[in-house]
Amino acid sequence: MEVPEIVNQMHEEGLESLLIFQPENITYLSGYWPTSSSILLLKDDPVLLVPKLDRKEAEEISTITVEELKSLDKLKKELPANLGVEPSLNIATYQKLGDDFKIRVTDLLERSRIIKSDHEISNIQKATDIAEKSLLELEIRGAEEEVAAQLEYIMRINGSSKPAFDTIMASGYRSSFPHASTSSENIESPLVIDWGAVHNHYASDTSRTLIQTEREEEIFDIVLEAQTKAIKTIKPGVKASYIDKVARDIITEYGYGESFLHSTGHGVGLEVHEMPSLSSREDKKLEAGMVITVEPGIYLEGEFGVRVEDMVLVEKRSRVLNNMDSRLSF
Amino acid sequence: MEVPEIVNQMHEEGLESLLIFQPENITYLSGYWPTSSSILLLKDDPVLLVPKLDRKEAEEISTITVEELKSLDKLKKELPANLGVEPSLNIATYQKLGDDFKIRVTDLLERSRIIKSDHEISNIQKATDIAEKSLLELEIRGAEEEVAAQLEYIMRINGSSKPAFDTIMASGYRSSFPHASTSSENIESPLVIDWGAVHNHYASDTSRTLIQTEREEEIFDIVLEAQTKAIKTIKPGVKASYIDKVARDIITEYGYGESFLHSTGHGVGLEVHEMPSLSSREDKKLEAGMVITVEPGIYLEGEFGVRVEDMVLVEKRSRVLNNMDSRLSF
Repeated sequence: MEVPEIVNQMHEEGLESLLIFQPENITYLSGYWPTSSSILLLKDDPVLLVPKLDRKEAEEISTITVEELKSLDKLKKELPANLGVEPSLNIATYQKLGDDFKIRVTDLLERSRIIKSDHEISNIQKATDIAEKSLLELEIRGAEEEVAAQLEYIMRINGSSKPAFDTIMASGYRSSFPHASTSSENIESPLVIDWGAVHNHYASDTSRTLIQTEREEEIFDIVLEAQTKAIKTIKPGVKASYIDKVARDIITEYGYGESFLHSTGHGVGLEVHEMPSLSSREDKKLEAGMVITVEPGIYLEGEFGVRVEDMVLVEKRSRVLNNMDSRLSF
Repeated sequence: MEVPEIVNQMHEEGLESLLIFQPENITYLSGYWPTSSSILLLKDDPVLLVPKLDRKEAEEISTITVEELKSLDKLKKELPANLGVEPSLNIATYQKLGDDFKIRVTDLLERSRIIKSDHEISNIQKATDIAEKSLLELEIRGAEEEVAAQLEYIMRINGSSKPAFDTIMASGYRSSFPHASTSSENIESPLVIDWGAVHNHYASDTSRTLIQTEREEEIFDIVLEAQTKAIKTIKPGVKASYIDKVARDIITEYGYGESFLHSTGHGVGLEVHEMPSLSSREDKKLEAGMVITVEPGIYLEGEFGVRVEDMVLVEKRSRVLNNMDSRLSF
């Protein structure tokens, strides 16, 4: 969404101004990723306030007028009485704003960010491409943490500014932890890799599970069936919770419902986890332009785990942004 | 500080319980780094609440009893009426807690974290060692972003779980931006490198500037003199703001006061930037056990910049945790 349109929506919500601290929201509006505490004051003539040390660099990048941020106390004197703030604003800053304002918390920007522009989709596609290309160049041998280090390095060389999140490289029984921390143990089977790149501040998020035994293959097939059918169900107008239900029902039919420990997916963009959530509690309906992950998993305590995760763009139906096979071998 | 001691301090502040969301504070108390939204409820018998998907892994690591986090709504029913929260708590969660509680914002944990235990110091020392060793193994040739990628990879191989922050590898006129984003340009002189490793969740933060010309050397010498004298001034009882004054006065005497665009340093630990701040506005006195950076810099607009930054432990005097020369050549 363009800045003037967001300003209009802000007025429609009865707000004169929005005080924005979250780096992702500042980047969304201005193109500038703040490296120090900065504030974007959204109003009819928006202004990006950055500390003196960042001013020159911000002026080179920001599409919104840059001014020097002196202090919140000084800024307060220039603020309109009717002010919106982000849900992520910390309570210490909120309290510093004091009682002079009529402050309302609004997720206006987070809601705007759900529908991606062509430009945003192209950044997300690029991040996904970098992540995939890098995995295919990776030699999977040695300790989990060494292989994770290699993968992150290859992504960086291929144009990712950083890993989108702590890479998961979890093998053997550690794959049964959905968020396993990467260990110094040598890689065994199966191996869950959950990794992402960042391109122009936009993230990707993909998972693959490399398997060896028949038992692992049996579980893998169930997860893949759940994922495939969930993806096929995606189209505008369908409730996000229904996609979760489709994946969960299949896994439950096979008797593993209790081992599917998380929701089926989430939005991806400037943040790795953003709206909507593909969970049983999400009331939102899918709309064209959303980018979501679809990532069912089965985690067998003390044994192993399997997860398959792709990035999906909602169009007339679903378009999977990943090109890589779901089934990879060691 | 040990958990029972922190609980005592909490009681002294008139709080029955502290609701802790920030990953660094959860790690500080339990040793477990939460990868999903988790809550540590600090009370006489503290409990770490994690979502089902993280429970097994949390139980392997946490020194505090782990239970499953169902939802904030369910948790609310079990909370005491007299509740403390962290300054970093987001306003959305704060509002969800509702009006049933007497909620007070306290930085009790952030204050506890200022003084490092021997165990914490050893983690910080190790992170510093990894960062230094890695720089010495680095070949400085090619594009800024490629060299930054190499450095991050070498740190990872040497035992860092991730870069402590976005590595700054800023050369030529880009070095005049204190927080320069790393470019695809080839490295010129001078080159500011600002980098850090993470070991057991503890960070390091160091900067070096590689120089070539006489003009660069002239500026470098001023910065190094300011840094050396500031470090020599460090001892328990001295105000943090005085360390900033010592560095700033020297740079100002040489006529570059306006080009020293940031404060002289900050605490480092589980976060790269934590208390105390070595700025003109910091009232805190230095105490034994603090770990701080000392990092004066001069940034000449349109020309170049120089920064030298070391990690310093406050003991009877100062102990520099870095072993590397301040003066490095290409």
